Amino acid sequence: MTTGFFDGIAPVRFEGAESDNPLAFHHYDPDVMVLGKRMEDHLRFAVAWWHAFAWEGGDPFGGPTFVRPWHPQDSMEAARRKADAAFEMFDILGQPFYCWHDADIRPEQGSFADNLARLDEIVDYIADKTRGAKARCLWGTANLFSHRRFMAGAATNPDPDVFAFAAATVKSCLDATHRLGGQNYVLWGGREGYETLLNTDLAREQDQMGRFLAMVVDHKHKIGFEGTILVEPKPQEPSKHQYDYDVATCIGFLRKYGLEGEVKLNIEQGHAILAGHSFEHEIALAVAEGMFGSIDMNRNDYQSGWDTDQFPNNVPEVALAYYHVLKGGGFTTGGTNFDAKLRRQSLDAEDLIAAHVGAMDVCARGLKAAAAMLADGGLEQALSERYAGWERAEAQAMLHGDLDSIARRVLAEGINPEPRSGRQERLENYVNRFV
Amino acid sequence: MTTGFFDGIAPVRFEGAESDNPLAFHHYDPDVMVLGKRMEDHLRFAVAWWHAFAWEGGDPFGGPTFVRPWHPQDSMEAARRKADAAFEMFDILGQPFYCWHDADIRPEQGSFADNLARLDEIVDYIADKTRGAKARCLWGTANLFSHRRFMAGAATNPDPDVFAFAAATVKSCLDATHRLGGQNYVLWGGREGYETLLNTDLAREQDQMGRFLAMVVDHKHKIGFEGTILVEPKPQEPSKHQYDYDVATCIGFLRKYGLEGEVKLNIEQGHAILAGHSFEHEIALAVAEGMFGSIDMNRNDYQSGWDTDQFPNNVPEVALAYYHVLKGGGFTTGGTNFDAKLRRQSLDAEDLIAAHVGAMDVCARGLKAAAAMLADGGLEQALSERYAGWERAEAQAMLHGDLDSIARRVLAEGINPEPRSGRQERLENYVNRFV
Amino acid sequence: MTTGFFDGIAPVRFEGAESDNPLAFHHYDPDVMVLGKRMEDHLRFAVAWWHAFAWEGGDPFGGPTFVRPWHPQDSMEAARRKADAAFEMFDILGQPFYCWHDADIRPEQGSFADNLARLDEIVDYIADKTRGAKARCLWGTANLFSHRRFMAGAATNPDPDVFAFAAATVKSCLDATHRLGGQNYVLWGGREGYETLLNTDLAREQDQMGRFLAMVVDHKHKIGFEGTILVEPKPQEPSKHQYDYDVATCIGFLRKYGLEGEVKLNIEQGHAILAGHSFEHEIALAVAEGMFGSIDMNRNDYQSGWDTDQFPNNVPEVALAYYHVLKGGGFTTGGTNFDAKLRRQSLDAEDLIAAHVGAMDVCARGLKAAAAMLADGGLEQALSERYAGWERAEAQAMLHGDLDSIARRVLAEGINPEPRSGRQERLENYVNRFV
Amino acid sequence: MTTGFFDGIAPVRFEGAESDNPLAFHHYDPDVMVLGKRMEDHLRFAVAWWHAFAWEGGDPFGGPTFVRPWHPQDSMEAARRKADAAFEMFDILGQPFYCWHDADIRPEQGSFADNLARLDEIVDYIADKTRGAKARCLWGTANLFSHRRFMAGAATNPDPDVFAFAAATVKSCLDATHRLGGQNYVLWGGREGYETLLNTDLAREQDQMGRFLAMVVDHKHKIGFEGTILVEPKPQEPSKHQYDYDVATCIGFLRKYGLEGEVKLNIEQGHAILAGHSFEHEIALAVAEGMFGSIDMNRNDYQSGWDTDQFPNNVPEVALAYYHVLKGGGFTTGGTNFDAKLRRQSLDAEDLIAAHVGAMDVCARGLKAAAAMLADGGLEQALSERYAGWERAEAQAMLHGDLDSIARRVLAEGINPEPRSGRQERLENYVNRFV
Repeated sequence: MTTGFFDGIAPVRFEGAESDNPLAFHHYDPDVMVLGKRMEDHLRFAVAWWHAFAWEGGDPFGGPTFVRPWHPQDSMEAARRKADAAFEMFDILGQPFYCWHDADIRPEQGSFADNLARLDEIVDYIADKTRGAKARCLWGTANLFSHRRFMAGAATNPDPDVFAFAAATVKSCLDATHRLGGQNYVLWGGREGYETLLNTDLAREQDQMGRFLAMVVDHKHKIGFEGTILVEPKPQEPSKHQYDYDVATCIGFLRKYGLEGEVKLNIEQGHAILAGHSFEHEIALAVAEGMFGSIDMNRNDYQSGWDTDQFPNNVPEVALAYYHVLKGGGFTTGGTNFDAKLRRQSLDAEDLIAAHVGAMDVCARGLKAAAAMLADGGLEQALSERYAGWERAEAQAMLHGDLDSIARRVLAEGINPEPRSGRQERLENYVNRFV
Repeated sequence: MTTGFFDGIAPVRFEGAESDNPLAFHHYDPDVMVLGKRMEDHLRFAVAWWHAFAWEGGDPFGGPTFVRPWHPQDSMEAARRKADAAFEMFDILGQPFYCWHDADIRPEQGSFADNLARLDEIVDYIADKTRGAKARCLWGTANLFSHRRFMAGAATNPDPDVFAFAAATVKSCLDATHRLGGQNYVLWGGREGYETLLNTDLAREQDQMGRFLAMVVDHKHKIGFEGTILVEPKPQEPSKHQYDYDVATCIGFLRKYGLEGEVKLNIEQGHAILAGHSFEHEIALAVAEGMFGSIDMNRNDYQSGWDTDQFPNNVPEVALAYYHVLKGGGFTTGGTNFDAKLRRQSLDAEDLIAAHVGAMDVCARGLKAAAAMLADGGLEQALSERYAGWERAEAQAMLHGDLDSIARRVLAEGINPEPRSGRQERLENYVNRFV
Repeated sequence: MTTGFFDGIAPVRFEGAESDNPLAFHHYDPDVMVLGKRMEDHLRFAVAWWHAFAWEGGDPFGGPTFVRPWHPQDSMEAARRKADAAFEMFDILGQPFYCWHDADIRPEQGSFADNLARLDEIVDYIADKTRGAKARCLWGTANLFSHRRFMAGAATNPDPDVFAFAAATVKSCLDATHRLGGQNYVLWGGREGYETLLNTDLAREQDQMGRFLAMVVDHKHKIGFEGTILVEPKPQEPSKHQYDYDVATCIGFLRKYGLEGEVKLNIEQGHAILAGHSFEHEIALAVAEGMFGSIDMNRNDYQSGWDTDQFPNNVPEVALAYYHVLKGGGFTTGGTNFDAKLRRQSLDAEDLIAAHVGAMDVCARGLKAAAAMLADGGLEQALSERYAGWERAEAQAMLHGDLDSIARRVLAEGINPEPRSGRQERLENYVNRFV
Repeated sequence: MTTGFFDGIAPVRFEGAESDNPLAFHHYDPDVMVLGKRMEDHLRFAVAWWHAFAWEGGDPFGGPTFVRPWHPQDSMEAARRKADAAFEMFDILGQPFYCWHDADIRPEQGSFADNLARLDEIVDYIADKTRGAKARCLWGTANLFSHRRFMAGAATNPDPDVFAFAAATVKSCLDATHRLGGQNYVLWGGREGYETLLNTDLAREQDQMGRFLAMVVDHKHKIGFEGTILVEPKPQEPSKHQYDYDVATCIGFLRKYGLEGEVKLNIEQGHAILAGHSFEHEIALAVAEGMFGSIDMNRNDYQSGWDTDQFPNNVPEVALAYYHVLKGGGFTTGGTNFDAKLRRQSLDAEDLIAAHVGAMDVCARGLKAAAAMLADGGLEQALSERYAGWERAEAQAMLHGDLDSIARRVLAEGINPEPRSGRQERLENYVNRFV
């Protein structure tokens, strides 16, 4: 017996670019080989429980718009029905992974012990469903931002009891992720920051956060969890300022607290945009520092100043993101999580399926273009040529020299370099041959 | 004999808040004691040679608007006349410091050797003038961004000859700063970044920049320069992305390259705003990390998306900046440099003087308000109370504990923290009592 | 018997700038005369029912944080208790006005008829309370954006039944405003716009909106409502694009539909900022076009890209806003409505009172500074001098001339104008003498 | 004899999508028929003299980077050489149009009479070249923003002599455009706005601008110019605020001054973005109001806050723009002007050609996609269905009704509308089938 929510929607199949079936894949073909690996294994798609099943369509100026068979979400029965619907959708889409917060999968009510019991119960239920299904847990995470107790932060809270509550919560979610065979565990610090500097001790709060993260890493090793611990940068919203501002800030933080070998990054397009970066910049920087982990794939509206979490739909942009993912060696434990929500006017089950299908197709096109660019090698060759001067002995020598000796050489040789074209438009045209 | 440019403008005197003389100080009284120190010694004002004397009023859509006795700026004679005018203005304002780039003080033409000779000559000239004047060098710096040779970066250039040219240039400017008794040396990497990731090797370029900075530090020690080396964060403009994005990014960079004990930060209001931060955030963060050095005082137009470099005029904002400066112990070698330019329609000598006078008054009011808040202690007391729970033994124990033991305690004690008001509006009202 | 919510908080009195009582007015003194009018009559403060009493502290990433005696807000009993608390707060603050949406004052449930009956009932209740109190209705408005039926717009909805529902709702709210003696009626079109152009017929929707507004004007006259109809510009949020983008757009819209003599503008600081304008720009433009009505006083966080609706706290900015209000003749039916909400961490009754007290003081300081500038006349005199050339006969003649004759004169007279200083910094310094 | 600048670059030919020749068209095929019209006649490409030939690569932080055979641009000989190079490039690209400012085509020096004589001379020279070439004048315009005399505006200047000078200049440029057979004349008011409200009389300045524009329209009729007068919206930069903020503002302005039947709009992607709109929004709005004229095709960097004027490279975005152009009936006198400049590191002639070739291909792909969507009719059908309810008699009746009668019907019929899905993601997927 099904929830009935997706009645009439058949499993989505690959039908090719020419199909006009809106509920077919036109580009995503899981088994097709791309650079020697199945497309599915490259992209490692995950559905996000929160947006797909828990979000009800509200925004700061309006209430819920969605009507679902698992509403209201205030009982364990509803939680099970929601899980049933989730797996029905996973069967329709055929994507290999899902992601969750504790608050998505079971109602939050009463004491910590009550919530823990409900978490255990629903994790058992999901684990059971998993056994007969394809979708596996890409990552789990704790919601440390929605309940009012976390309004002033979790690890960074001025009240040590909130720190304790958060620590206990993360333990429970990391344990649950381990139980579900999750390949990563994510921490997003939506309230780890401040609303006003006037009431905030920055230094103290960051030390708390460093200590908290170290304990999470210790616990991972203690329980034998072999997945990756990931932190997720975001500059602000809900907080005015969040400590995990962007990739560079997170890397600096991890290095300060000696965690750069233990923790990697989960990078989201919308968060990159809000921090003033392109998505590919954030990925490339994480790759350059050896801390790339996973991506939250969505897009932000460029004319809106908040996190719009829309499904990706711009192939040229997505292609550049995957280019840097592939160039960095591709995903290991990470994947492509659709941290994207329907527009609140998209009320129907078919909207939910179509949004994911369209997004998977966009990613597939992006991946194929990225792979073709890598195979062609044009960008890499242009890079090699541009920096070729640094292969010369006297160039390398400078990297071990001093200002005096370099200045003497400039004077002696009359060095007066002539600039060379950066060829940006030609490189952009090159990319457009592939997207 | 004078340049005549400031004819008719008398030295500016403190006349008090009630004076309606537009060319008097209404709040800046150098000798008045604030928290046990002369106001002048707190604020340590500097005039910026580039905006005050070298900028001609152009913008991306229009040419020069200013007409000055030292135009055109293409000869050593003009450079000397410009220096004469500078010291005339310093005498009028009475501020204790000035700052400069090589390109501000002598024309840039011909070979490196030619430019070096002209730099030596003008530094002698300025040193001579300094002997009879009050103003001293707060910091010097090299312009590694205006000439076309630097269009693709200086230290991060794909062409090692540009790296060499830049290294020789910084050596010459650091030597000159030392000669002028400068108290700091600043590096702003306006072109250390990229226009497009498509032609950029992020990892390689940052390594180049790390190595370059290490050589600068070595040279400082070699020549016995006792001032502070400062880097100046900015997120973008002129480049699409600059590696020294903001304070957090710079700190991460310094830590990565082992320079966190050698280099501090010069923080600019306009750059903070462009990076999505408040000025006080950037200062507070640098203070928290022990890397606060100096400030470039200006303001950005909040409705414009580029660096407007306007003179500060909002006392409440400036007060919060100085609050964090004072809380961090105040300036040591650093100071308040007016990295601010006249609007290009402000054509007259009187505009230039009035802009500085108004800005010095705004800073004086900000400083007095900040000092009064510190003396009153209301914000510090609110902080102590807010974090008081962390003084308890079991709270401190958590910082050396593990998730398991904390989770056991949460369960055992039924910890379920009740949030407490953050009192933001009450704290904002408190601040408004002082500004 | 009281709700108990404000127990222990006495009516707020003016105690002067030197008082350190956080719940006293330091600058707002209702009876003091400013430019010949009582301060209270200048500022015409209103408390906004929605932020002060209906909002529960939720944000896009978190649930309610406030606990109030009138929660949950789902019964008429709670609605009455909320109204009781409102008037208790009005008595404490002593402000002369309040504003409301239908959805703030009674629960929204069931059919239109049910909601109408509840509206009538609560309006009677409020009218009763008003008789024994000072606070009067500044304006009422209909909430046409929170309920899911309005998700795709109210007047601009693709479904004419929603248009009908909205029309009936506005009728009921305009009638209720009339009954409460309201001095204005406001329309804010939060959903009158679109999420995506792909499903939107711009031209049709704007015609619907024009027609809707014309009917509101007709109804006003029909029932003898002598207040002002106001529309409130906002560029976006909740919608991606809102048709009432900013003051200029609204004025163009009103002119297109022949409503420029019937409708004025309610201008909000936060909305101005989101549209890329300063608050004073929007006010000055409305004044220049004769369509200035009222203001929603708050502030937006300059580093956040959404509507933060914070209480005002920057006196220099507020002073410029009131300068343009006063220059335009001051408020007639309009006033200063605090469309500002507590930060969600500000949990206590005392926060709510303090926020308003601080805001009223900031406005009072701004008003006094604005009045002093007007009385001094320095800005007006500078304007006269700057445009004085236009008083010359040949200048006026050009305004009735043609290009040919002007070109002949330019050639004949060899006109080659020399620019004159705009004196921006000197004018900014001038303003700083007053704030 | 040629300038030699483009030596070695052959005329660009269409070679199809599979070609890997970087200097061939892969999608732009002038003669191919699209919706019954030649592609060339749809797109009507123009090269912009200013970016392509006059701009030297400077930015606010750096000087020129380009080295061209017509540098320095301070003599008529250089102006002729520049024109020679322009027509060499037009022959290579084969585009049908060019656009210019007076300041692009001849040096600006001395008196008005001197400049007028030089303008006449170069227009003769260009007219001669035109006779033997394909490229024709799409539009001309006067540069009323670069010279210091215009620093405080042209038509809106506080000095009536500047107004006169500007009027004479526009007359000369409109005459020249007429002489060159231009199909439009454009006014972009880069300095028609303000740097600070403190020294600005908004109402007066807008009246000046309205009068100025009316005179331009009169002159057009007087000389028998049959082209279209266009104004170009931009929100700010170089000015803090520009009166022609966006399409809606311009339309309101034209309506206020009774010019809505005489003047249309030239819409630029980068300006739309800076004003907080998508490009397609601005086009659709102008089409809806019957005031669409022409487009300046470029793109803005979404992470930069100023006008980056880059060549377009995102096909999905460009397709949506052309969709609204085609839906509005396509261009009449207008066209696609590449108001786009090379990045300042793109030094070579080949960069200049490649940038245009890539942009023309991107536009061709966008046009083909837009045409295919229109031919398919999917979006139009979705619109019809969404608004179908408005065809009902009682819906139409409301547009001539009143609030009372509608409210009675809502009550009588118990109207309580159920929302229907807006289907945004499905429509986005639909578009992705075509781009």
